[in-house]
Amino acid sequence: MVKLVLVRHGESTANSANVYTGWNDVPLTAKGRAQARHAGELIKQIPDFAPTHIHTSVLSRAIVTANIVADVCHFLYLPINKTWRLNERHYGKLRGINKDLSRQIYGKQQILEWRRGFYSIPPEGKKITDRRYHTCDLHRLPLAESLYQTQQRLLPYYNNEVASRLKNGEDQLIVAHGSSLRALIKKMEEINDCDIVQVEVPNAEPISYTLNARLQIVDKQILR
Amino acid sequence: MVKLVLVRHGESTANSANVYTGWNDVPLTAKGRAQARHAGELIKQIPDFAPTHIHTSVLSRAIVTANIVADVCHFLYLPINKTWRLNERHYGKLRGINKDLSRQIYGKQQILEWRRGFYSIPPEGKKITDRRYHTCDLHRLPLAESLYQTQQRLLPYYNNEVASRLKNGEDQLIVAHGSSLRALIKKMEEINDCDIVQVEVPNAEPISYTLNARLQIVDKQILR
Repeated sequence: MVKLVLVRHGESTANSANVYTGWNDVPLTAKGRAQARHAGELIKQIPDFAPTHIHTSVLSRAIVTANIVADVCHFLYLPINKTWRLNERHYGKLRGINKDLSRQIYGKQQILEWRRGFYSIPPEGKKITDRRYHTCDLHRLPLAESLYQTQQRLLPYYNNEVASRLKNGEDQLIVAHGSSLRALIKKMEEINDCDIVQVEVPNAEPISYTLNARLQIVDKQILR
Repeated sequence: MVKLVLVRHGESTANSANVYTGWNDVPLTAKGRAQARHAGELIKQIPDFAPTHIHTSVLSRAIVTANIVADVCHFLYLPINKTWRLNERHYGKLRGINKDLSRQIYGKQQILEWRRGFYSIPPEGKKITDRRYHTCDLHRLPLAESLYQTQQRLLPYYNNEVASRLKNGEDQLIVAHGSSLRALIKKMEEINDCDIVQVEVPNAEPISYTLNARLQIVDKQILR
């Protein structure tokens, strides 16, 4: 038996302003930092949970959450791998727009389609040239993503860096984002394209999976 | 030209209590956190400093300092490599003892010898079994170290992970400890075995080296 724990970052300034964020780099709010500390306390109480690695995105809200959790759990010395493949879904042109305003601009039905359709891609945004992506092949970075595309770029990282270690009996911790975690949960729990719409991953509520040697789920706990 | 910046962690609870710490894992004080933020502000102002990696020890006081500096400098997304080879000098049996008390126990002259002699090794302490060292070859970990031995275990990491990147034109940032940084500075500045005694590395005062293609120092700034 091995444990995989997933946790979404604490509240960000964009969460509190109800804005599409995606690859925008926004900080945690004071509430978000407190949520991260609470998530750390919950993770610390998971029996026998001893991860060898923490995995997170290259976005500050997830990294700071990971650092706070690591501090609370006395895991500071663990490697924290940061990868764009765990980034939030790229919302393209919606990036930075208030969610209510987006309905006025594009219509309620269209926004619903982009949000709910597993394969729906919002309109492409500008190319990202941020220095944090300079070690990536910039031509392969998305300009907008469906949840399906988010899953497709996340899974190679999950398989190579996370699942391989779980198979080796090493517990792992992933600190990521609402939609990148939904994409991963869809795969892990074999949720169909329609039902994934109903899955919400609240800020800083850790999900603890106990997995068997074939990485099948034998127990799932949501910690609050 | 390439830049290497060294910074010692902010004040720890052991610094403030005047205790030999070495491999003990003690937290920063509130003052130490503020010092780390100030160090971050100073590093942010270094012209054209754009590190590709941050290197630190597996001890919390250095890691938390690195995290704070990374946050202030907007470097959070950078890989932070954590290695025991950048740990503080291992003080063996002196670990955890008040510095004044140590003089009463061992005599002023003996303590002076252990502190000042480049090759002097304090009495061996207990074997460290902390989980953070489980990925190391535990039999190769020291039970006490001279400054020379500290340098010997640090240099392979420096050469493989830091100097190789500097030669590639990539700026690097090291966040470490008083004596591990002294050991590195001795090598970089070719300081002799006697003069190194006079070198002090205060908490959270960044040292910025500008190096040429052969990694010779062309400029050194201490930032306050």
